[in-house]
Amino acid sequence: MYRYRRELGKKYWYSYSVLKKWYRCIPICLFLFQVALLDVDICGPSIPRIMGLEGEQVHQSGSGWSPVYVEDNLAVMSIGFLLSSPDDAVIWRGPKKNGMIKQFLRDVDWGEVDYLIVDTPPGTSDEHLSIVQYLSGAGIDGAVIITTPQEVSLQDVRKEIRFCKKVKLPIIGVIENMSGFVCPKCKNTSQIFPPTTGGAQRMCEELNLPLLGRVPLDPRIGKSCDEGKSFLTEVPESPAAVAYQSIVQSKSSKPQQASLFIHLPHA
Amino acid sequence: MYRYRRELGKKYWYSYSVLKKWYRCIPICLFLFQVALLDVDICGPSIPRIMGLEGEQVHQSGSGWSPVYVEDNLAVMSIGFLLSSPDDAVIWRGPKKNGMIKQFLRDVDWGEVDYLIVDTPPGTSDEHLSIVQYLSGAGIDGAVIITTPQEVSLQDVRKEIRFCKKVKLPIIGVIENMSGFVCPKCKNTSQIFPPTTGGAQRMCEELNLPLLGRVPLDPRIGKSCDEGKSFLTEVPESPAAVAYQSIVQSKSSKPQQASLFIHLPHA
Repeated sequence: MYRYRRELGKKYWYSYSVLKKWYRCIPICLFLFQVALLDVDICGPSIPRIMGLEGEQVHQSGSGWSPVYVEDNLAVMSIGFLLSSPDDAVIWRGPKKNGMIKQFLRDVDWGEVDYLIVDTPPGTSDEHLSIVQYLSGAGIDGAVIITTPQEVSLQDVRKEIRFCKKVKLPIIGVIENMSGFVCPKCKNTSQIFPPTTGGAQRMCEELNLPLLGRVPLDPRIGKSCDEGKSFLTEVPESPAAVAYQSIVQSKSSKPQQASLFIHLPHA
Repeated sequence: MYRYRRELGKKYWYSYSVLKKWYRCIPICLFLFQVALLDVDICGPSIPRIMGLEGEQVHQSGSGWSPVYVEDNLAVMSIGFLLSSPDDAVIWRGPKKNGMIKQFLRDVDWGEVDYLIVDTPPGTSDEHLSIVQYLSGAGIDGAVIITTPQEVSLQDVRKEIRFCKKVKLPIIGVIENMSGFVCPKCKNTSQIFPPTTGGAQRMCEELNLPLLGRVPLDPRIGKSCDEGKSFLTEVPESPAAVAYQSIVQSKSSKPQQASLFIHLPHA
């Protein structure tokens, strides 16, 4: 959910507001950097599946837990790697979840990394408070908020925005996901999740936040996630991939925001 | 998330596993009964909006908090009614959320009700544990689990199923939501969230659970939710409304499961 930066020589850390999924594109968009991805969705970790890392295990060494590498420059940590089966339920109340998050931040041997991305579940509760609290000294740069176009989703997102303001977390911007579906047969566009109150655009205007972009619905995104493949390399020409890249590139041109990663929610 | 029944004369209580939304149909499907709906999604309460009750307030009387009535036979309680604005964030860790849930169960003056439906957020954490714990003496009948067709969603749902088994909560069945989208122009069906691993059907076969039905994607569902209107009365002839009614009716024919309510997740 958050982006933060640690001013230690060349060591910049970031993390982002995300709902779920789609980090396989990180090595492509940020091939010059070393990136760490931390999944703090303790009860619903989907990062291992999406990244094609199911069945991988975390190893303990003298310097801490070793993360799992998707690519040379992308290290991942998730509670999913600690479960004996992907169907295992983690039935934990808040304090145990917070302890796990603290352990992930303290005990994982990420090596030298340029960015840290934190993937949070939706909400404004333990996981979010813990990340902000534990990283308070690290200088979080900000959050990227993801929504879908309907008012019911925007309402939840406005709560996230209030949360960010309350804990003094800057908001880098908002991304609208599932913005329309193009029928593969007749090319007609349907608003499957209709923006009855103006969608993310109007919300951003009202709250004076940047709308970073809109990503259309594409069944191949879900398929790539299920199969643990990168959507950007599978169908690079698709409108969703183009939308995604354009968001990253537009932000990448600004040095202060060179690390904008976007993560798509699953339905 | 759960259905439970209290054997006190004619007083039967139930609640259900749901992801989000769509209770406006309850009075239609269960017009003979008095129904209570409790929203335990403390950090993301969307029930007030979906039910067309935004701006309503809860009143305190000598006998407790009075719920808000959508219809004569449908009473609703949500933390959303206690907030000064629908955009207000509830930034609470687990223990405070648990306290609120306990208060909802103890202090709300529901009057004489036949059924109680509890709408939970996704996950296997505080809200779920608290509901099971606080209602352990009430005899919960079971949970209805809602999923979408992709493996990433099914993986979360398998965790919910494990949770139910662990806490000895019977599972009434599984409903697949967002099962295909029919283009309004050319009538071609697209699997927007592709069932790459066989969808809910295969999962139910593997786990020996009843698949109660499949509800197709329909933009009018989201629109009805945003506008707080009943999808069943707005577009009763739509395939999604028909699917919904067929699930309710098929279960209604069995006396022990006369109270099957389904609640659709939002994207």
